[in-house]
Amino acid sequence: MKHLFMVAVAAASLILPASAEEPAPIPSPGEIAAAAPASDWVAMAPSDLLVMDLAPDARGKPRRVVIQLMPAPFSQGWIGNIRKLAAAHWWDGTSVNRVQDNYVAQWGDATEKKPLPKGLATVPEGDYVTQTRGTGGQKRSVTSDGRPLVMNWSGWSPGWSWADQVDAYSTKRSFFRGWSFASTDGKTGWPVHCYGMVGVGRNMSPDTGSGAELYTVIGHAPRHLDRNIAVVGRVISGVEHLSSLPRGTGALGFYEDAGERVAITSIRVATELPTADQPRFEYLSTESDSFARYVDARQNRRDPFFITPAGGADICNIPVPVRPVAVK
Amino acid sequence: MKHLFMVAVAAASLILPASAEEPAPIPSPGEIAAAAPASDWVAMAPSDLLVMDLAPDARGKPRRVVIQLMPAPFSQGWIGNIRKLAAAHWWDGTSVNRVQDNYVAQWGDATEKKPLPKGLATVPEGDYVTQTRGTGGQKRSVTSDGRPLVMNWSGWSPGWSWADQVDAYSTKRSFFRGWSFASTDGKTGWPVHCYGMVGVGRNMSPDTGSGAELYTVIGHAPRHLDRNIAVVGRVISGVEHLSSLPRGTGALGFYEDAGERVAITSIRVATELPTADQPRFEYLSTESDSFARYVDARQNRRDPFFITPAGGADICNIPVPVRPVAVK
Repeated sequence: MKHLFMVAVAAASLILPASAEEPAPIPSPGEIAAAAPASDWVAMAPSDLLVMDLAPDARGKPRRVVIQLMPAPFSQGWIGNIRKLAAAHWWDGTSVNRVQDNYVAQWGDATEKKPLPKGLATVPEGDYVTQTRGTGGQKRSVTSDGRPLVMNWSGWSPGWSWADQVDAYSTKRSFFRGWSFASTDGKTGWPVHCYGMVGVGRNMSPDTGSGAELYTVIGHAPRHLDRNIAVVGRVISGVEHLSSLPRGTGALGFYEDAGERVAITSIRVATELPTADQPRFEYLSTESDSFARYVDARQNRRDPFFITPAGGADICNIPVPVRPVAVK
Repeated sequence: MKHLFMVAVAAASLILPASAEEPAPIPSPGEIAAAAPASDWVAMAPSDLLVMDLAPDARGKPRRVVIQLMPAPFSQGWIGNIRKLAAAHWWDGTSVNRVQDNYVAQWGDATEKKPLPKGLATVPEGDYVTQTRGTGGQKRSVTSDGRPLVMNWSGWSPGWSWADQVDAYSTKRSFFRGWSFASTDGKTGWPVHCYGMVGVGRNMSPDTGSGAELYTVIGHAPRHLDRNIAVVGRVISGVEHLSSLPRGTGALGFYEDAGERVAITSIRVATELPTADQPRFEYLSTESDSFARYVDARQNRRDPFFITPAGGADICNIPVPVRPVAVK
């Protein structure tokens, strides 16, 4: 293909093994992930997957969006509400009501009159940030071109450690069970507003939102929302069904005509679906050597297309690799 | 509007003047820009605007995308080629061929066989980075809530100065004539791959692309492309006509069926259009007090919705305000 530039994450083809005579080219981040052994991939629990089916598109094609909810101890108050809302089938018949370019796609009850299920928690603003443990360890590995590599890593809970990062929004970052977090004090951390992350719409402070009104980021990471709005999950499949919707022409990207809204057929926790219909995904263990090499490659692109490696990457440019699992 | 979060750049309503009794609420970045005096806005030259008309959408609505080309001394080799290609009407009848989610929309000649105009320059890789001057100045102002504010700023050429920034991709940033640039040595600078920026597709190094194959960023800023691909401009209007297109299902987001491609009716430099049809835009002077306050507000959100100001913003989260001008 001529006159293109290559894309790391998109290029997931396996690299060829190097012969004794000729070294293999330096792999791209996507190639490193694709070459990772099966033991470095972790299955996602269906109980943590939210399956949102939108009405079929104009050509009758189904539109399924799969969202992975965050692991404890993060944002569990809102996530508990979201599980109750899904169990009550509360979102069935609601819609995507707002699509603002380079910002968010937002869904919920456009009438704002639909009664909420009983027993939803009121979550305090303090839960935007979570206590983490200072313990953990270091991952020693080698880069794909043989240089020694040391990556501070987040061990399995309660293990936790922070790596310094150059960032306008925080001074430390950590990867934990397939997710990335930011911190300034190294004792508390918060999830970050990156592309595809799912957050909870709210009114003015001290309201923090119930979880009934959700959005996903469809543009450059709005990191100024970190610690100001709850992050509860991320879209792991089908984000294009939201990001490619027509932009709303009303204030803040709201659809002006009810006819422009995109109907939500249903939102379910995957465990409520027939087993054969449950999505299966896995992520590259953030505690694996493969992930350490992947992070290094994201920060220092040395695959053939690149001339000048950046020497770093912002946290939202290090998406944790996720892949579907073929159901046997 | 309930259960939403507010958006700075979208909320462009003027703030109310403060009475002696009650101070005005702290304005959002968008409100600061909207309140800027007319003298702080700079008209864009029609000779620097590229007007791309796509075939009308399924409902027959026109789709116009307006691109502002970068000012000298940046990327002028490629921009010279782009002016020749537009003057030759070379893009007429070509198409948008690639839309990759959270990455780019790319257009040009899908056949890769269309002859290029004579006399296009071959631009060296060295031109990804540009020499800048070390002189310049400082802007002293006050924030909207009265705190003293000093912002290093880029004076009019040859004035130039760099402000330190916390960034994974560079150590300094500067604003110059309505554009933002990054640097590590403070002597050379390069344009940054932010949302809506337009770049030049290329083959493997040392090819740098002719300018015939262009793309715009429709996702999180792929800053690792900085200094590896030429940036030549930015979409200032109509980016939604590219960012909301269906994603390609082929490798790298290419459309697999020719029928999926979006036809380009024409691409012209605005000066070639009838005067009445020429788009008119202006940008907030990056050397103005208003812009200094806007940057401060982007970095420290204190408008009512926010609880925890970030204390910083990455360069791609400080888009230079641009607005259309009503033609008299």
